[in-house]
Amino acid sequence: MSDATALVERMAREARQGARLLGQAHGEAKNRALGIMADTLLARRETLKTENARDLAAAEQNGLGAALIDRLRLTDRGIDDMAEGLRQVAALPDPVGEVTGLAPRPNGMLVGRMRMPLGVIGIIYESRPNVTADATALCIKSGNGVILRGGSEAWHSNRAIAAALAQGLEAGGLPRQAMQFIDTTDRAAVGALLRCDRFVDVIIPRGGKGLITRVMAETRIPVIKHLDGNCHLYIDREADLAMADELVFNGKMQRPGVCNALETLLIHARVAPAFLPEIAQRLSSAGCELRGCPRTRELLKGAAPVTEATVEDWDTEYLAPILAIRVVDGLDQALEHIEAHSSRHTEVIVTRDHRRAMRFLREVDSAAVMVNASSRFNDGFQFGLGAEMGISTDKLHVRGPVGLEGLTSQKWVVLGDGQIRR
Amino acid sequence: MSDATALVERMAREARQGARLLGQAHGEAKNRALGIMADTLLARRETLKTENARDLAAAEQNGLGAALIDRLRLTDRGIDDMAEGLRQVAALPDPVGEVTGLAPRPNGMLVGRMRMPLGVIGIIYESRPNVTADATALCIKSGNGVILRGGSEAWHSNRAIAAALAQGLEAGGLPRQAMQFIDTTDRAAVGALLRCDRFVDVIIPRGGKGLITRVMAETRIPVIKHLDGNCHLYIDREADLAMADELVFNGKMQRPGVCNALETLLIHARVAPAFLPEIAQRLSSAGCELRGCPRTRELLKGAAPVTEATVEDWDTEYLAPILAIRVVDGLDQALEHIEAHSSRHTEVIVTRDHRRAMRFLREVDSAAVMVNASSRFNDGFQFGLGAEMGISTDKLHVRGPVGLEGLTSQKWVVLGDGQIRR
Repeated sequence: MSDATALVERMAREARQGARLLGQAHGEAKNRALGIMADTLLARRETLKTENARDLAAAEQNGLGAALIDRLRLTDRGIDDMAEGLRQVAALPDPVGEVTGLAPRPNGMLVGRMRMPLGVIGIIYESRPNVTADATALCIKSGNGVILRGGSEAWHSNRAIAAALAQGLEAGGLPRQAMQFIDTTDRAAVGALLRCDRFVDVIIPRGGKGLITRVMAETRIPVIKHLDGNCHLYIDREADLAMADELVFNGKMQRPGVCNALETLLIHARVAPAFLPEIAQRLSSAGCELRGCPRTRELLKGAAPVTEATVEDWDTEYLAPILAIRVVDGLDQALEHIEAHSSRHTEVIVTRDHRRAMRFLREVDSAAVMVNASSRFNDGFQFGLGAEMGISTDKLHVRGPVGLEGLTSQKWVVLGDGQIRR
Repeated sequence: MSDATALVERMAREARQGARLLGQAHGEAKNRALGIMADTLLARRETLKTENARDLAAAEQNGLGAALIDRLRLTDRGIDDMAEGLRQVAALPDPVGEVTGLAPRPNGMLVGRMRMPLGVIGIIYESRPNVTADATALCIKSGNGVILRGGSEAWHSNRAIAAALAQGLEAGGLPRQAMQFIDTTDRAAVGALLRCDRFVDVIIPRGGKGLITRVMAETRIPVIKHLDGNCHLYIDREADLAMADELVFNGKMQRPGVCNALETLLIHARVAPAFLPEIAQRLSSAGCELRGCPRTRELLKGAAPVTEATVEDWDTEYLAPILAIRVVDGLDQALEHIEAHSSRHTEVIVTRDHRRAMRFLREVDSAAVMVNASSRFNDGFQFGLGAEMGISTDKLHVRGPVGLEGLTSQKWVVLGDGQIRR
């Protein structure tokens, strides 16, 4: 057994023990600890910035791009936001212990369900260092032990944040071992965590497709994951075109690099001539590249530059200011396109017609299906979850934004007075 | 690609297409089809019995035990029960399309969740031929496509039942391809199904531990499974001992071969002397073998035969009239024992004390946790689900009895009037 494997197994075993205690903690205790964790982060502001500077220096030395370095940077504002995030999670209702559906069976015993933590959650992330605090807050609040494995480029920052959080957790009277930060850069540690099915109940990878694919290939532990966000908006033949214009522009351009941004516009042939030239000019002027089907290109002649959309375009999550456009003959064709190409993340219909709105809602099988609203709303904060661990494109357990409820499940509880089975 | 792989891929692709149509069928259409499926089974009673006779003859020739042959036999009563089961599932409320929690966000858009089928469910089973009908009914009602792979010993029976069901499904106006029976005995077909992650959304293995272990090892598709049923009953120091006697006897002896039967009795040292001799005599007289800790053996001297419980006994699901008994010093020790040895299936406390009842309910992390009721109640029918696909010992998605709800998940729905994100 390698050093990394032994280390990770020891951590996972400790996390399991810690999780058992944490799962029984009252909401008050968890909220107090989250507050102290926030205080500790703020109190160590200078240390966090010093450690972050080491990551930034290494990133520059290794020639990381400006965007990546920007994501890595811990500003004063970023540190304030992490602390505020911890307090916001503390303010959310405690999901653990909630009993629902408790009702009598014919023999008099009461049967219902009680919400419980999942146990130990392994989080493997590549993203900004603030994930260390955000993910820990959600795990602690939902009563789960957490094992964190951050990216090597944010190594010193993540480690400093985790140390502050762990100290806050302990100062708040909760078991420190419920939170484990894998403090080795040995890459074997990831594999060890993925094999640790004895102590880890779920793995949540947060990062690019390469990471997700690796996790899927290497683990037997259940995974809550986000794959692609190839999101569609369909403009029906009866639609408020001014509204459609706003929804397309907002969906594509408000933040093109995120998973709930639009990638493909589908539009009914009847309204395409009136609609496409105007939105195309608006998007082009804002720096958006357009790729269209033959009918789209015909309609946009002289209006805006548009290249030919290839088969790959329909399957691509651009994560960039690029929009694919296809003219369709009606809802059926739009639904077929979505069925064939969607990544089941977010789909939108713009329509005035109630019946087609209801059909779209029922028939589209994506994590979020919307009528007359921007795809950008598929987000835990926007949906009112208070916070999120990411957006699941899985079908089992949890779809869409993963909030506190997604980090729990329900066991059955039975209250009897001696019932036996005949 | 082998023949079996090509066959299974074609079936899975068809099941996916059928599932898309089935998922949109109204409850009325599904219920009518289930009724016709029941009629078709009854109309083919003689064919089913003839085909079953071929399986029985082969089983006898292959020297299968009397118990196995008994499980294999399709009696008139068994055929009636299958048909009645289909009608019972038809009578249950349709889970698909239910919208919950629809409420406005501050910007006026309504956000809620809609229950949807999982998609295509692969069922690999070794059990009695009636599983073919029971599992299909639940999948159809929940709007899921189903791919069935039964055991070779029930090959002719399963095939005849599946043919009757498929014909009834089609006669009821629903897509026949939503139901696929893998009609080859080629063992490679199981592997092919387990690799078919493009078209299959979840695998449900129903059978012995060997099957479950194989499925877990070979697939990347999410699995809903039942591992062990190592169930415990703890008798608190303040308990109604007459009630405890009934609950222990019922839990162990009402049907010793099933997963929700008791395997280990934990008893507080204070009440053990008054309780153990009597229940031990009752169990022994009924043919139950006892294996005890040293304190148990001391207390049972002269009362009933009891062998020494080894470490393995605490971890064993006997599925037989054998009970392990351990005297403990209190609730903490009982909880530790359960944490260390339980398979997280069903745990029971017998107590008059409210506080310890609540502690047990909260702290035991099993699919079902009961106060003063028989472990034998952990069952979909007993809990009021109307039917079940089995009992999940997983933590994610669904714990305990898997009914119609366990075969669905929820997507987010958003009803807006042009909301964009700022």
